[in-house]
Amino acid sequence: MDIEAALKNRGKEQKDADERRRAAEEYTGAKLDAVSSYPFDASAASTNVENMIGVIQVPLGYAGPVTINGDHAKGSFLVPMATTEGALIASVSRGMSVINAAGGARVKVLSDAMTRAPVLRVDGIDHAQKVIDWITEHTEEIDAAVVSTTKHGQLMEIEVFPAGRDLHLRMSYRTGDAMGMNMCTIASEAVCRLICENTGAVLVSVSGNMCTDKKPAAINAIRGRGKTVVAEVRVPKDVVEKKLHCTAALMAEVNTRKNLIGSSLAGSLGCNAHAANMVAALYIATGQDPAQVVEGSLTLTTCEVDGDDLYMAVRMPAVEVGSVGGGTKLPAQSEALALIGCNGSGNARKLAEIVAVTVLAGELSTVGAQAAGHLGKAHSQLGR
Amino acid sequence: MDIEAALKNRGKEQKDADERRRAAEEYTGAKLDAVSSYPFDASAASTNVENMIGVIQVPLGYAGPVTINGDHAKGSFLVPMATTEGALIASVSRGMSVINAAGGARVKVLSDAMTRAPVLRVDGIDHAQKVIDWITEHTEEIDAAVVSTTKHGQLMEIEVFPAGRDLHLRMSYRTGDAMGMNMCTIASEAVCRLICENTGAVLVSVSGNMCTDKKPAAINAIRGRGKTVVAEVRVPKDVVEKKLHCTAALMAEVNTRKNLIGSSLAGSLGCNAHAANMVAALYIATGQDPAQVVEGSLTLTTCEVDGDDLYMAVRMPAVEVGSVGGGTKLPAQSEALALIGCNGSGNARKLAEIVAVTVLAGELSTVGAQAAGHLGKAHSQLGR
Amino acid sequence: MDIEAALKNRGKEQKDADERRRAAEEYTGAKLDAVSSYPFDASAASTNVENMIGVIQVPLGYAGPVTINGDHAKGSFLVPMATTEGALIASVSRGMSVINAAGGARVKVLSDAMTRAPVLRVDGIDHAQKVIDWITEHTEEIDAAVVSTTKHGQLMEIEVFPAGRDLHLRMSYRTGDAMGMNMCTIASEAVCRLICENTGAVLVSVSGNMCTDKKPAAINAIRGRGKTVVAEVRVPKDVVEKKLHCTAALMAEVNTRKNLIGSSLAGSLGCNAHAANMVAALYIATGQDPAQVVEGSLTLTTCEVDGDDLYMAVRMPAVEVGSVGGGTKLPAQSEALALIGCNGSGNARKLAEIVAVTVLAGELSTVGAQAAGHLGKAHSQLGR
Amino acid sequence: MDIEAALKNRGKEQKDADERRRAAEEYTGAKLDAVSSYPFDASAASTNVENMIGVIQVPLGYAGPVTINGDHAKGSFLVPMATTEGALIASVSRGMSVINAAGGARVKVLSDAMTRAPVLRVDGIDHAQKVIDWITEHTEEIDAAVVSTTKHGQLMEIEVFPAGRDLHLRMSYRTGDAMGMNMCTIASEAVCRLICENTGAVLVSVSGNMCTDKKPAAINAIRGRGKTVVAEVRVPKDVVEKKLHCTAALMAEVNTRKNLIGSSLAGSLGCNAHAANMVAALYIATGQDPAQVVEGSLTLTTCEVDGDDLYMAVRMPAVEVGSVGGGTKLPAQSEALALIGCNGSGNARKLAEIVAVTVLAGELSTVGAQAAGHLGKAHSQLGR
Repeated sequence: MDIEAALKNRGKEQKDADERRRAAEEYTGAKLDAVSSYPFDASAASTNVENMIGVIQVPLGYAGPVTINGDHAKGSFLVPMATTEGALIASVSRGMSVINAAGGARVKVLSDAMTRAPVLRVDGIDHAQKVIDWITEHTEEIDAAVVSTTKHGQLMEIEVFPAGRDLHLRMSYRTGDAMGMNMCTIASEAVCRLICENTGAVLVSVSGNMCTDKKPAAINAIRGRGKTVVAEVRVPKDVVEKKLHCTAALMAEVNTRKNLIGSSLAGSLGCNAHAANMVAALYIATGQDPAQVVEGSLTLTTCEVDGDDLYMAVRMPAVEVGSVGGGTKLPAQSEALALIGCNGSGNARKLAEIVAVTVLAGELSTVGAQAAGHLGKAHSQLGR
Repeated sequence: MDIEAALKNRGKEQKDADERRRAAEEYTGAKLDAVSSYPFDASAASTNVENMIGVIQVPLGYAGPVTINGDHAKGSFLVPMATTEGALIASVSRGMSVINAAGGARVKVLSDAMTRAPVLRVDGIDHAQKVIDWITEHTEEIDAAVVSTTKHGQLMEIEVFPAGRDLHLRMSYRTGDAMGMNMCTIASEAVCRLICENTGAVLVSVSGNMCTDKKPAAINAIRGRGKTVVAEVRVPKDVVEKKLHCTAALMAEVNTRKNLIGSSLAGSLGCNAHAANMVAALYIATGQDPAQVVEGSLTLTTCEVDGDDLYMAVRMPAVEVGSVGGGTKLPAQSEALALIGCNGSGNARKLAEIVAVTVLAGELSTVGAQAAGHLGKAHSQLGR
Repeated sequence: MDIEAALKNRGKEQKDADERRRAAEEYTGAKLDAVSSYPFDASAASTNVENMIGVIQVPLGYAGPVTINGDHAKGSFLVPMATTEGALIASVSRGMSVINAAGGARVKVLSDAMTRAPVLRVDGIDHAQKVIDWITEHTEEIDAAVVSTTKHGQLMEIEVFPAGRDLHLRMSYRTGDAMGMNMCTIASEAVCRLICENTGAVLVSVSGNMCTDKKPAAINAIRGRGKTVVAEVRVPKDVVEKKLHCTAALMAEVNTRKNLIGSSLAGSLGCNAHAANMVAALYIATGQDPAQVVEGSLTLTTCEVDGDDLYMAVRMPAVEVGSVGGGTKLPAQSEALALIGCNGSGNARKLAEIVAVTVLAGELSTVGAQAAGHLGKAHSQLGR
Repeated sequence: MDIEAALKNRGKEQKDADERRRAAEEYTGAKLDAVSSYPFDASAASTNVENMIGVIQVPLGYAGPVTINGDHAKGSFLVPMATTEGALIASVSRGMSVINAAGGARVKVLSDAMTRAPVLRVDGIDHAQKVIDWITEHTEEIDAAVVSTTKHGQLMEIEVFPAGRDLHLRMSYRTGDAMGMNMCTIASEAVCRLICENTGAVLVSVSGNMCTDKKPAAINAIRGRGKTVVAEVRVPKDVVEKKLHCTAALMAEVNTRKNLIGSSLAGSLGCNAHAANMVAALYIATGQDPAQVVEGSLTLTTCEVDGDDLYMAVRMPAVEVGSVGGGTKLPAQSEALALIGCNGSGNARKLAEIVAVTVLAGELSTVGAQAAGHLGKAHSQLGR
């Protein structure tokens, strides 16, 4: 075998994948047996990967079932989580059992829009204003440019941010049941071409980082990206005591000192215990983009005493998920989506609701564990 | 089958996984064929997952080979990436081909320490000072408490942050070749127990969020977490032109308007194009914790003209990886590590260096594409 | 004299001020001669201060004149600055001399709205949604509530941010020529009363910190507060050389490494050299609120080479100034406003434009000094 | 009079100030009577201002007296505040009266160091490391360079932040009783000259913005700048009720929803109600740099129920004050310092403690007012 040539094979068929894998083995001396074991033809992943040589098997378990009272997700769900972090699923399941004993979690999608924010180079302030005026006065042509590139995407808003010779435009789109980044990128390029042709502005980058995709940015926390979702649960006093072995007051204390004060001292954009864990496991299981765990980590967890009961909630400003597109069609990922009835059209918001409730369950369990294991112990030891 | 009972089966054997999978199928009506196909016994993942019902197969390809001139990674590497995002590997490979034509990338681990930051409740300012004094005066006992819990971990520093009745302690540890979160958590609990017993402080949470694990926090960007790594490449003018179809000046412009100015306007903690993409794909491939992609996204990408050549660099303040522990022992993940010669002891820093160079390649390719595709086009169209 | 009683004198007349001053002298042993010298009757400051005992004299100089080409400020201005920091006015004047040689600075107010963001307590997600719906459906009653409290303020928008049992409402107002905080506070209280009476929500605080007043918050950088202003100047190559003793390229380098990269590494919300200096001096001189220097420090300074020339700009997202109200009526402050033709109605935006150009001048001078003094010297020394 | 010439008079004598003032009147048509009234010769401000034409009189009142139990400030203090914001001093005084009824406030300076952070240009990673190594190995020469420029300053630490071709160095100094910026700047320049001469690095800017001076940056919140100070008070239940007309529980609620949650949602670096107000008024009164109000606004306010009592605290990471230098020698400013026994050597930390307690008093009053006026009212109205 000509190893160099085989490594450069760009074919998408199974035989190409096999050739590359053997070449990689030769090139590196590594054995690639496990990665070569998968129940589908390599061509089935042709739009998801290049230079495919096999797969990584990420262990899949479920948390729950959990009772969800959403606008879209209603009923009892077994939530698929793909992870290599021991104890994560057990912890989330514990949180879900608390949610169930409390009668379920309420969850709601507050807003839904994917964003792309190109940056244009302009001559300066007056040119920037001229471009902004042109945009304001040509919404129909701009909409037509969007429509020419996509049938699912719909432009909702363009926010403008001039700064010197930079003009940043944050474009928000409805993207149906797809996460929608590609759709937004292509549409935004078309819009920018139109703007540049008519105004003399120059497109510097179709993403000028105010989108903000896969970077931890305040703009996503404030303006939202993808779905903004809130989830909550009220846990009766006796459930807190019996299942979490602590009290609502202790949990509120942990949440304040850790998630609110500690996060503030750390200069953190997210105030939560470990939202990223649940987001990552669910995203990998269901074929979402795991780099968007970054935005998932912007979650704000609040926790307070309500009478003697516990009230806990999460606000997730940027849940970027789709029930179509991305990795959702891959065999195992599709099955994981089927587990929660979320594969195919019409299910993106339902999926977002399940994400938020799963995050809530994980937060509930972890904050509860801190309150029980530590404060509790300390209290009894020290007689406080 | 008693579905409810089967769903609660907590066994770790293959038969347990199979029973749960069948129960999940019954419970939800979903078919779980693909997830049931994997080349190992479920018990092999017993420490990585609970309620296992199978696996998610994430497509695995490689980028490269890429020439790396690190302190630990030296030579030519085929980098494994597990992803469902089409075009990602192709883009990174393009960047690596540029790096190769430029003679390789230089990379260095600047620091290496995992952190845990418990929060204690104290009575107020004077009590906080007393606790701090106790810590300062009892380093030997504290070190002994650490040693009693771990043979690989070594406490390096405790930073103190008093705020009202909160006392946050940020503890930094050497953790050998493990990413080391668990080791740090257990050691920190032991240290806190010791402190609390001797000072009357109360442990509120072993993580008070100043660690900061899996949340986007400035403290990690400033103080580092895991490995702080820098990577760079100097690309000669003709390579930029031939392989990236643009110029160093155009790339520097894209980087400034997008990664620096755009990120600043967005209130972002990370200034990069898409570091999280490369981090996520490599972390999933090699059994790292994908929720720590959050910290990977803190990357700062700089790009400038050097004579007529291009200079590009990434600073990654928080690369949290291990060559042992976590998911590194799972069959496919272990093979992916073998591809880059990183499985087992002695390889954590080498892995971190490979991560940084892979991120550099992805940044190079994306910034280059913007500079070529857009600015270039605009320039010729508009005669600028 | 009964010192204790005299210290508790709450009178607003000159004799009250004198009595308090003498009591303070007795109480502390300090001599208060200088503070007692001021050319107005204490009663003239009755709405600006309590427990008045005199004044602090802050040295007042001017920078400029500077040529401004604004939408509101047009012509040549001597800018009053009150400061105790030697070299500040000299530096700003140097920058203004460069601006003049370049033909003046262009400046524009992009938006103009003062904000107040109350936080309400609600029962949870569904209650929050009900409150939001009520707001959406009762805009007329809400506007009437605003009108009942102010004749200058006009409500423009209410943004809603639900999080658990918190409902944050960010209300934006036109406030005419007043900075407008008080007007917005009173109007927002009236609106909240109306909302609470009709929905059962509870007003927790008329400011829930999303306003954000006098704290450094990304929301102000992104959404603006008060006036959002941009100012720019193009400086010909020979002016840069002759007056700043450096080159556009060196200045762009300083700006990138210091204001963009350094600020990013520091986790900063503002990317500028010292905007706060100019803002503070102008605010104190003209009777603005000096605590709002905090928002002024959110300035983004950009600097680039334009051919061989220099292009420099500032984006100030939150210039909170008024030409009426606050301290603008005090004798010296009113005179300082008169110096720039900004006292009284119709001048708030003009004042904001002068602020931005003054900041631009200060940035120009400081970045230029770094480029000349240091890089230049280093270059000649090291033969680079 | 030759107006143009008179405006360019750079003299520092009284007659120069008078000539400029008259020229400014001619140039602008404004009358400058009030600004010309001040009880000292213009030459007394010669190091504080250029182009002096007079003064701005900022109304001065006092808050308190307040009982302070600091390490440096001990006893009862009348705190001078210069402000034009009506109700501010009344509010702070109310807070102080609560503090007094509670037996006084405890306050402590945790750390004390002024910082300057130059940025050097290096060739890349290896050069950066070489520079860092040189620094590590030449501490004696570096200390000597510092000593050659200052007798009060003492270099304590150099933190290094390499990023591509940038090498940022954060230098921390003891500065005695001066705020110390100038001293640190001059010393840092000398150190950088030494480093550059020996390593070939190039000084780009003596401030690379990681200092961070007068910009809102996380690094100051995390690492401190100037004095890091904590202050606290425990207020008995009956004092809360009688003087603040609410309860500790209501105040804790306001603090959590507003200062913690609201600030987090706003992407704020500071979590307080209005610390900048108190800082600005005290800084102007005592001749401090009012642009450093920015750092003062990084304050974290915490508030909790302690039994039935109230516990409230502020953590101020960056109180940059001096009892010598800056504007402290000006007549009125010096008298204001005398009021609190803080003029001259030996008093900088005492002043910092008084700043923190004054901020605490303002926070206490404002949070209390929200809790009483709003929640209280709402509670009774709605029967909650």
